[in-house]
Amino acid sequence: MVKLRIALAQTNPTVGDLEGNCDSVVAYARQASDAGAHLVVFPEMVVTGYSVEDLALRDGFVSASTKATHNLADRLAAEGLGHLPVVVGFLNRREGPGPRFGQPSGAPQNSLAVLHRGRIRLVSAKHHLPNYGVFDEFRYFVPGDTLPVLRLHGVDVAFAICEDLWQDGGPVTAAADAGVGMLVTLNGSPYERHKDDVRLALCQRRAREIGAAIGYVNMTGGQDDLVFEGDSLVVDADGDLVSRAPQFEEALLVTDLSLPPAESPEEPARADGFRVVRYAVTDRPSPPPGTRSPVLTPRRDPMSDLGEVYTALVTGVRDHVRKNGFTSVLVSVSGGADSALTATIAADAVGAENVHALVMPARDSTAAALEDADALIKRQGLTNRVYPVNHLLDALESTIAAADEGGTRNLLAQARGALLMALSREEGHLVLATGDKSELATGLCTHHGDAVGAYAPLKDCWKTLVWELARWRNTEDARAGRTPPIPERSLGRNPVSGWGAPGSVPAQPEYGVLDGLLDAYIGTDQGIAAMTAAGFDPDLVRHVVRLVDRAEHKRRQYPPGPKITKRNLGRDRRLPITSRWLA
Amino acid sequence: MVKLRIALAQTNPTVGDLEGNCDSVVAYARQASDAGAHLVVFPEMVVTGYSVEDLALRDGFVSASTKATHNLADRLAAEGLGHLPVVVGFLNRREGPGPRFGQPSGAPQNSLAVLHRGRIRLVSAKHHLPNYGVFDEFRYFVPGDTLPVLRLHGVDVAFAICEDLWQDGGPVTAAADAGVGMLVTLNGSPYERHKDDVRLALCQRRAREIGAAIGYVNMTGGQDDLVFEGDSLVVDADGDLVSRAPQFEEALLVTDLSLPPAESPEEPARADGFRVVRYAVTDRPSPPPGTRSPVLTPRRDPMSDLGEVYTALVTGVRDHVRKNGFTSVLVSVSGGADSALTATIAADAVGAENVHALVMPARDSTAAALEDADALIKRQGLTNRVYPVNHLLDALESTIAAADEGGTRNLLAQARGALLMALSREEGHLVLATGDKSELATGLCTHHGDAVGAYAPLKDCWKTLVWELARWRNTEDARAGRTPPIPERSLGRNPVSGWGAPGSVPAQPEYGVLDGLLDAYIGTDQGIAAMTAAGFDPDLVRHVVRLVDRAEHKRRQYPPGPKITKRNLGRDRRLPITSRWLA
Repeated sequence: MVKLRIALAQTNPTVGDLEGNCDSVVAYARQASDAGAHLVVFPEMVVTGYSVEDLALRDGFVSASTKATHNLADRLAAEGLGHLPVVVGFLNRREGPGPRFGQPSGAPQNSLAVLHRGRIRLVSAKHHLPNYGVFDEFRYFVPGDTLPVLRLHGVDVAFAICEDLWQDGGPVTAAADAGVGMLVTLNGSPYERHKDDVRLALCQRRAREIGAAIGYVNMTGGQDDLVFEGDSLVVDADGDLVSRAPQFEEALLVTDLSLPPAESPEEPARADGFRVVRYAVTDRPSPPPGTRSPVLTPRRDPMSDLGEVYTALVTGVRDHVRKNGFTSVLVSVSGGADSALTATIAADAVGAENVHALVMPARDSTAAALEDADALIKRQGLTNRVYPVNHLLDALESTIAAADEGGTRNLLAQARGALLMALSREEGHLVLATGDKSELATGLCTHHGDAVGAYAPLKDCWKTLVWELARWRNTEDARAGRTPPIPERSLGRNPVSGWGAPGSVPAQPEYGVLDGLLDAYIGTDQGIAAMTAAGFDPDLVRHVVRLVDRAEHKRRQYPPGPKITKRNLGRDRRLPITSRWLA
Repeated sequence: MVKLRIALAQTNPTVGDLEGNCDSVVAYARQASDAGAHLVVFPEMVVTGYSVEDLALRDGFVSASTKATHNLADRLAAEGLGHLPVVVGFLNRREGPGPRFGQPSGAPQNSLAVLHRGRIRLVSAKHHLPNYGVFDEFRYFVPGDTLPVLRLHGVDVAFAICEDLWQDGGPVTAAADAGVGMLVTLNGSPYERHKDDVRLALCQRRAREIGAAIGYVNMTGGQDDLVFEGDSLVVDADGDLVSRAPQFEEALLVTDLSLPPAESPEEPARADGFRVVRYAVTDRPSPPPGTRSPVLTPRRDPMSDLGEVYTALVTGVRDHVRKNGFTSVLVSVSGGADSALTATIAADAVGAENVHALVMPARDSTAAALEDADALIKRQGLTNRVYPVNHLLDALESTIAAADEGGTRNLLAQARGALLMALSREEGHLVLATGDKSELATGLCTHHGDAVGAYAPLKDCWKTLVWELARWRNTEDARAGRTPPIPERSLGRNPVSGWGAPGSVPAQPEYGVLDGLLDAYIGTDQGIAAMTAAGFDPDLVRHVVRLVDRAEHKRRQYPPGPKITKRNLGRDRRLPITSRWLA
């Protein structure tokens, strides 16, 4: 057996920031080298950030990525790190026959590169391209058909990218056929609740299937609508967990492994239909372990379920603010649970002083709600902004007479929304919308009113989860002897927006039923018959389905402002957020 | 040779309205029968509407589609139309082995069905699934592998769906191998400028390749962000155009053809790897042509380039308003070209009286602009609404002091936007945003201000095209002896929003250069080096790239309000707009 020290660099790249991403690769490669590692592996598409979406279709962006990767190899060598094999994910261009219909010339590939001694030594592309859920990779990439194998001081280490590990067949089978001693996968695997358990079980099963150790390196941090969990890990050939990185933060996971030496010098040339591409690092023998002390970043106690969700939300806010060039946020604070939790998440993400908490008293404000908003601000040290809005409501009402109480409530929400957006524009804060998923799904919010904002931390949290998260956060501080950040009364208050109006929903105690029903209808695509058969009251089922339909109709009346599209009359697709890579 | 009368029904289905879509099929089938047709063929996915996007992933929606298609076969027979073979596109479920990873059980297929004598006689699914541009079909569907052949009074007629005709290999090759006398394709082919020429040339080439006549039936109308052109056509086996339907309207194209009888009774069973599935209609001989007079809807003179674009824009507005259940629109009218053209398109789409033209005078209004807005309203008979907004601006400014002239302009735009949305909510009109693509691309608009709206007719029109379209529309009326709808002075006025501010763009005469540059950067993905090499001034190139980047950054500060997603922390995907199909 050969003793090797393998480093997995769990980093947080930014889409489009090729320079910053490469800086980070160099910094972590240096740490890995200092720790005596024989190999360091980075996440999927670490050079470009992930997911690049339609940027992949800009030829200039592909060129920027390949150029940055070549430069990275140069720079690692120039900075004295050429001896260390560094594996990075990057956006590459398929060599060989011309364009495929519907795809640009030199079709892009989601690729990895092995960098060593100043050059790119091996290149290979992702084979299985996920095209479901949040993934559209079949739109952007053409599949690869090679298995890259690095002979590292006598041990064959194969590499694959993300989905290639989840799908049967393909690179995993090829790695087994090739008889490698270890398989390392580069991942950009978005957070889902409880996915860490599934991930570990998958790695364990695959290790036993192919009879080799598995290294799994995942990115961390938030990017656009996604959050990446990290949770990088190593299992041995028996499927036993050897090491595991923390969730939701950058880390270098350094692991010592005893791996079987490769038997044959250069075979096979093909494995399970894949062409095996090889590179050997032999010139630097395995140092005796223990000669340098590795920087190990061990996993702490696993997070609780609620702690994990809360940290994912904080991570999403933190990186959405930072990666889009903002330093502060605006939150409209009403004294209710949604805005209290949103402000608390924001304070944990960007610092309390960078959270501008707007209190906008008006005719409908109760003294208790204003007190609770004030208590929230004081407990956390948020930046306090008070802007009465009766005069704005008066100005709106002097032009448009509201038809009923609901109309007045909507005008008031709109006055508040206008103030939020105007302050955002004048002062440069990012507005966080406070609505939760139950409210948004049932339409109990005012478009261009309380639903305004650039990022909505709670949009994927049912109302019941909002209460659970707020109580969890309070309990954590109470346990630590600190004052809980959220006033208890805010958690007992029923949301007011849209309540009492026709089409209202049950009071707090019944919210569990409502959320269950919404999750059945929206989360798992059930129909009326299935929901009724599951025991939900038939009248309630029909009522809620109508609410969701009406909310969807409202979204068609108050949709996003127009975006720019590339094609005439085409659907909206994302434009580059930066031209820093542009030649 | 056998004389057959083939009907192509160019209809306008609505996504989710299965009942209405089937009603339309029955009505056109009756017309085809009355015209003595031997066969009538409808567009791709006519039963569900197209594109259904994530609705395809709801098992209940697939069930609703298959049930509706079975019921349609029943109903056609019950209404005395059972003798006529009717071919429809529908959403079906793949039979056979269980779910594929990432796709739901009974994976959905973009399918066609031959209905005859009360039953579904043949079913087949689209083979080539487009997944580029506006298409995401690989996300939704699994490919088919059969070639459906209808033996119609001795002639073999094969069917295929949309992309199957555009791609080499697949069903087209299989149809040639099977030696069919005609190939009919069902299409949902979105409008692009000049695509009608490409489409005809493609049909002609394919006909010559396979030595058979080709029928091409396309849907018409607007659906969400897409517009379908119609332009259904028939070419003979030599590639000569035989008949062609009009653009942008429903039509039944009835064509008499002399087609070669099939030679062998039941062969081949496979063609180019495709399993051939067959059904024969023999019980009703071909009637002598001319016994009934066909309802032919011949193509009128081809539309001019500008006429075609204008009609596409009108079609998009008309169907977006109608299909989303609205009857009236709100347009903010400033006296400038963008809002004048938007209002004119809207009047042509939904009727002048249903266009509520809002004039919102304020400090920045000039008498000339107000006169032009008034003239526009009077010439067309739009519904005139005047709402001064100085008091709203005052109320906003009393709370938030604008830092500079640009800030005041933004607050004013926001006061107008708030009024628009409040009126929309109180009175139920759909707001049309007036911004053009040049303004939106360079960010010369105010989010939550003049960029508000549910539908932006001009979002894909560069500023120069706006002027061309407005002049074309005026000229059409002048030629017909009517008063041109748009005051000439509006077309000479430079847009004011954002002008003179840092980062402004050239005056009107130079807009051609700006639009050319924007089209190079956004439309064809060119980089700075390529644009400079093409002769654009290097400083202007860098300036415009910066403007577009800044605009994209603004869109991140003022994005759409939050939408509901199915998955935790997932990207936005569309919800059903209706549960009418829900069991």
